[in-house]
Amino acid sequence: SQMQSVPCLLKERSQEVFVPFKFVRKYFDIYGEISSDHNRSWLEWSHSYSKVFPHFKDNLYQSNGTFLQFGSFDVEQRPRVKCVSASEGVPVSTQWDKAGYYYSTQISQYALSHWSKAIQSSSAQDRRKLVYEDGLTHFANWKGDTTRVMSLDCVHFDLASKIQLSLEKTSDFVLNLDLQFKQNVTITVTVKTPKITYDVKYVNEDDFIRREGNLVILGYGSDLKEGEWKHFTRDVLTDLSKGISKKMFERFRGSSQIYLSDIALEGVGCVTNISQSHQEHLQMFYTGANWLRHNQDAQGGWPVNVVFNRDHTKYKFADEIQPGWYSAMASGHALSVLSRAFAASRDKKYLTTALKALKPFSVSSEQGGFSARFMNSYTWYEEYPTNPPTFVLNGFMYSLLGLYDLKNTLEMYGFGDTDDFGNVSELWQSGMRSLKALLPLFDTGSGSVYDLRHFTMQIEPKIARWDYHSTHVNLLYILSTLDPDQILATTGDRWRQYMVNQKARHN
Amino acid sequence: SQMQSVPCLLKERSQEVFVPFKFVRKYFDIYGEISSDHNRSWLEWSHSYSKVFPHFKDNLYQSNGTFLQFGSFDVEQRPRVKCVSASEGVPVSTQWDKAGYYYSTQISQYALSHWSKAIQSSSAQDRRKLVYEDGLTHFANWKGDTTRVMSLDCVHFDLASKIQLSLEKTSDFVLNLDLQFKQNVTITVTVKTPKITYDVKYVNEDDFIRREGNLVILGYGSDLKEGEWKHFTRDVLTDLSKGISKKMFERFRGSSQIYLSDIALEGVGCVTNISQSHQEHLQMFYTGANWLRHNQDAQGGWPVNVVFNRDHTKYKFADEIQPGWYSAMASGHALSVLSRAFAASRDKKYLTTALKALKPFSVSSEQGGFSARFMNSYTWYEEYPTNPPTFVLNGFMYSLLGLYDLKNTLEMYGFGDTDDFGNVSELWQSGMRSLKALLPLFDTGSGSVYDLRHFTMQIEPKIARWDYHSTHVNLLYILSTLDPDQILATTGDRWRQYMVNQKARHN
Ligand SMILES: [Ca+2]
Ligand SMILES: [Ca+2]
Repeated sequence: SQMQSVPCLLKERSQEVFVPFKFVRKYFDIYGEISSDHNRSWLEWSHSYSKVFPHFKDNLYQSNGTFLQFGSFDVEQRPRVKCVSASEGVPVSTQWDKAGYYYSTQISQYALSHWSKAIQSSSAQDRRKLVYEDGLTHFANWKGDTTRVMSLDCVHFDLASKIQLSLEKTSDFVLNLDLQFKQNVTITVTVKTPKITYDVKYVNEDDFIRREGNLVILGYGSDLKEGEWKHFTRDVLTDLSKGISKKMFERFRGSSQIYLSDIALEGVGCVTNISQSHQEHLQMFYTGANWLRHNQDAQGGWPVNVVFNRDHTKYKFADEIQPGWYSAMASGHALSVLSRAFAASRDKKYLTTALKALKPFSVSSEQGGFSARFMNSYTWYEEYPTNPPTFVLNGFMYSLLGLYDLKNTLEMYGFGDTDDFGNVSELWQSGMRSLKALLPLFDTGSGSVYDLRHFTMQIEPKIARWDYHSTHVNLLYILSTLDPDQILATTGDRWRQYMVNQKARHN
Repeated sequence: SQMQSVPCLLKERSQEVFVPFKFVRKYFDIYGEISSDHNRSWLEWSHSYSKVFPHFKDNLYQSNGTFLQFGSFDVEQRPRVKCVSASEGVPVSTQWDKAGYYYSTQISQYALSHWSKAIQSSSAQDRRKLVYEDGLTHFANWKGDTTRVMSLDCVHFDLASKIQLSLEKTSDFVLNLDLQFKQNVTITVTVKTPKITYDVKYVNEDDFIRREGNLVILGYGSDLKEGEWKHFTRDVLTDLSKGISKKMFERFRGSSQIYLSDIALEGVGCVTNISQSHQEHLQMFYTGANWLRHNQDAQGGWPVNVVFNRDHTKYKFADEIQPGWYSAMASGHALSVLSRAFAASRDKKYLTTALKALKPFSVSSEQGGFSARFMNSYTWYEEYPTNPPTFVLNGFMYSLLGLYDLKNTLEMYGFGDTDDFGNVSELWQSGMRSLKALLPLFDTGSGSVYDLRHFTMQIEPKIARWDYHSTHVNLLYILSTLDPDQILATTGDRWRQYMVNQKARHN
């Protein structure tokens, strides 16, 4: 039945009725908690738990600047990140496959988050770096049998003894080193926490991560050849946290008494350039950018190697998509990463990858790209290349931002008269034309829809939950600085008002 | 500021908060009242004040049957109806012009309402009719100087004396008579109410209606030629109610002590066929249908002779439309009326008018019709032929129902293989195709939008207030019986749920 009975209070004298907030909260899907100080109690309610950044509207978006509010993201700590791969240095996703796989969208977000953090880093602490060993000017005080290899500025170790180095007791958790692999090398870092001492161990195996008691083991890959060099930049605290339970991690997270106490190497190999730093954001950003370079396929995309919409659970009325599909959001993010990598390094290899990445933007989803048409009139870059198309809004706007980043970078660095520039400009303009035309179709008058499934599949609309809704607003604000059409900012403003119950008027 | 402070109650022991309903009601735009009996008080809240008729979904819609719930409408009593014209026998609208004018949409609604009432009428009371004078078998007991004109079966009266007839004391308020006009004829009906005696007077003037004290005067037109016959069917109580204030009317409305006491004629003329009936729904229906026949223009439409969107008040971002425009809703309603008139009378003149009425369905709004295209893909029949188009949903669905009525009537009465049938079928099918495709764009996940102005004008959506929303549902239910596509009934069902706070899911 649609009737529900709820006990209320009635003030007899004024005939005022009071309704229990517990009921109101559930019924209207709002948020609210009681707070109190010594002389009163109050209840604050709100409609959204999400954040809009109004300053995005006021400052011209910079294609080599911070990426939205990604500087405040901790991609590594997301539940869907299994760990940061010791082999590739990029996050491993479990979103659609519990075993873990490389998901380029997430890798780009990792890169963009570290890029933004790098730009925002300016304190002395941020720049802190302690060099232990570089084989040239810094020589560490090793325990165990070592041999200095002068020609390679490094320290040799072999099966006869493990070598070990005490680390300074600091609150810096990022370790860097270069390893020349010969046989069976394991690197073990000891982490002291207030109650428990953990070991984080890097081994030449393919397992991403596993735990054995207080030991967390990450595989850096079993395919290194003898004599091959490998660089490590590890946020050891992140590696530890990904190996133990969230509950265990929360027990010491943020404590001032955690530190890395020492590092040990076993097996046969050489090591050098050992340092400990507070952060390596730029390094982590480049690791992501380089992963994109090395993992782009011949079609210019980053194929997702899991089934999308398995058993039609995400979209009941759309087909499954077999592994190997591309996402406009992934490619757009990649463009944002690669444009910044080029701007920072001026190394054209990043541009080469970025330009190749434009290909699937012009290929329809049916043909293996991710371009869709709305009523044969408007082009859309699909976050998911579904059949029928879904027209996901946030992914589309991210893809537009990527196109802008590349277009603007080409223009800024002297490629403004190339065919490549013409090509990316056209993709950007055609996408923006679609966004401005179709944006009203996402407007419910009290929120926004996540996609246009209700149109393409003739089903109920999928209301965007507040964090997607606020992402819509933030992206609209940023895009409004790149296009003079008022609809972007006015829609953003109106949608922001929806978050505080200011709905569109009815007749 | 977006903060508002509202005193609440806190149950200390359970830490339960109670929020004043007065605030909740306003904040969430809901309805609710306190009721009480001797042992308890309760509050009932609801989201909508409007009615949905689920049985519309279950019974195949009949193009010669009742029209939606119009049988329960009292078109004459709507505030926008100035009166029922004594000259034309159809309502006069004040919707966009206080002076009053003939608005074919309203006239058709009047006709469809009386048609539906006629079908629903079955009691002895409904059939009650008292004949006073027909010059042939019934001879009234006149006061004053009368001469019987045997050749015309009527009673002559002239300037020498007014003639008067006492009426039976019944609760029947509809008077019928045929008048042969010669000079200056006035017809006065005396209405007794518990406190006040009113006169309702019909005069050969052009004024629609006016009041002088307890006298209400309606003009039956100044253009009758000497010797011309005119039929009157007057709901005298309606005429009285339209001349006095609503407050005055409410004082005696529904009382069992109101009755028509007598009728008097003055001037020079003949009168016959005087009767008093409980209702004349079918007669009133035909009056509407015939008005449509006589007022259709050469383009097949019923031009609205007022400016639409004057000073851009209804649609800020659409042009004004100069007088003479057509409405798909008006034409659709006209088709519903004329189809029924043909079905009931088998008189082809109604079909002729109906078929001519199809013309503006195929002419674009720019070209003086009311057809619009959505993204160059879908045809829409516009309730208001605006530039840019507005895609009003309820008017469109009414126009589809009109097309169906004509299509079905042609088929039922042996015109199923004519070009005309082909033409109306095509208009129906093309419209239904558009409805089914675009319907999701009207779905907000918690209600519906009134039109697609937000898309065509890039502004905030216009949320349909609940009575429009319930009209949407009722029309979807009816159309769902005429088309096998599930989207009509499932959308109707979902939209109905929105009226009890069952919203679409968010992700
Ligand atoms: Ca997304
Ligand atoms: Ca309407």
